Amino acid sequence: MKRNILTVGRQFGSGGRTIAKTVAERLGIPYYDKEIVEKVALETGFSEEYIEQIGEHARGKSVWSYAFSNPGVPGVMGGMSASDFLWVIQRKVILDLAEKGPCVIVGRCADQILKDREDVLRVFIHASDEFRAERIVRLYGESESKPEKRLADKDAKRRAHYKHYTGEEWGNSLNYHLCLDSGVIGIEKCAEYIVSVMKDE
Amino acid sequence: MKRNILTVGRQFGSGGRTIAKTVAERLGIPYYDKEIVEKVALETGFSEEYIEQIGEHARGKSVWSYAFSNPGVPGVMGGMSASDFLWVIQRKVILDLAEKGPCVIVGRCADQILKDREDVLRVFIHASDEFRAERIVRLYGESESKPEKRLADKDAKRRAHYKHYTGEEWGNSLNYHLCLDSGVIGIEKCAEYIVSVMKDE
Repeated sequence: MKRNILTVGRQFGSGGRTIAKTVAERLGIPYYDKEIVEKVALETGFSEEYIEQIGEHARGKSVWSYAFSNPGVPGVMGGMSASDFLWVIQRKVILDLAEKGPCVIVGRCADQILKDREDVLRVFIHASDEFRAERIVRLYGESESKPEKRLADKDAKRRAHYKHYTGEEWGNSLNYHLCLDSGVIGIEKCAEYIVSVMKDE
Repeated sequence: MKRNILTVGRQFGSGGRTIAKTVAERLGIPYYDKEIVEKVALETGFSEEYIEQIGEHARGKSVWSYAFSNPGVPGVMGGMSASDFLWVIQRKVILDLAEKGPCVIVGRCADQILKDREDVLRVFIHASDEFRAERIVRLYGESESKPEKRLADKDAKRRAHYKHYTGEEWGNSLNYHLCLDSGVIGIEKCAEYIVSVMKDE
């Protein structure tokens, strides 16, 4: 069966985003990333920076903490955390985008949000710490934290966020159709395999 | 980097064994299955049937329970369970086979036993319950238990065995280089991808 929609979960620094973009280009279908942030910003009134920051990370932080530091925010929902509020809106945005037609969506628990659709291919990309540490320093530069710590922190946040909102273990192979170690298989080859499965060649 | 050794973990009924055999044939390298059981039988004095039965399943069962019902067994180890005893011997057999040269090994926690070798490709094959239920009834016939129960029982045993002896979660994508849903990707296509990665084409 041909798949129309690709979701890509990924460890930080594994090249999942690059692979997802490459697949979208080769299949000639939209790659949603910035669009999701823009749509969520439009619906919530949150800034795009804030959505980027907590969209896959935070949980349980009170929406008041945002509202107090950003007084212009409309429609604060009593008692709901900013993260829960974002989850509700982001989930709706992703369901709507999938309805529009073939596309590629990275992260944001899209694999679980769209799990009832039979035309979705769910992929997870990961790699060794060594491969990812070298890659993030090369692409994003040095920072105060050691690369290994940056990887561990970001992965821990994604894992906690995924568990909190889906109840599932992030990176459990049973939740994906294809899990690839991009360090061993190669980023280009990962894209090739995914394109081949999407096309059902 | 070219990989010499392939380990294949698999859910019951997913076609992992078929895929492993196909890859071994195409690469012209040995596929170890019966040989492991024979070697373990030779080293332990256990019957091949008994090894097949508990080699990937049981844990903690006292070696005495075997010895009492099979009075000829030599060298019973005081207090060690039959399963622990088998683990020690089976692990050594797998390490020795890997030393001999390129090969394919299915199950038996070989991925973890050989994890320090850099020439090993670790693969996990899984599929939906529907796909596997249809397949086991077609291949192995009906039994008293419903197919869904047979799948759940066997997977639970493999998961517990893997956790007990390796400390790792069975099917966690981070422990494998390639995890494939054989129902979605297709058994033939799974074999093709694995051959391609092994050859580093």
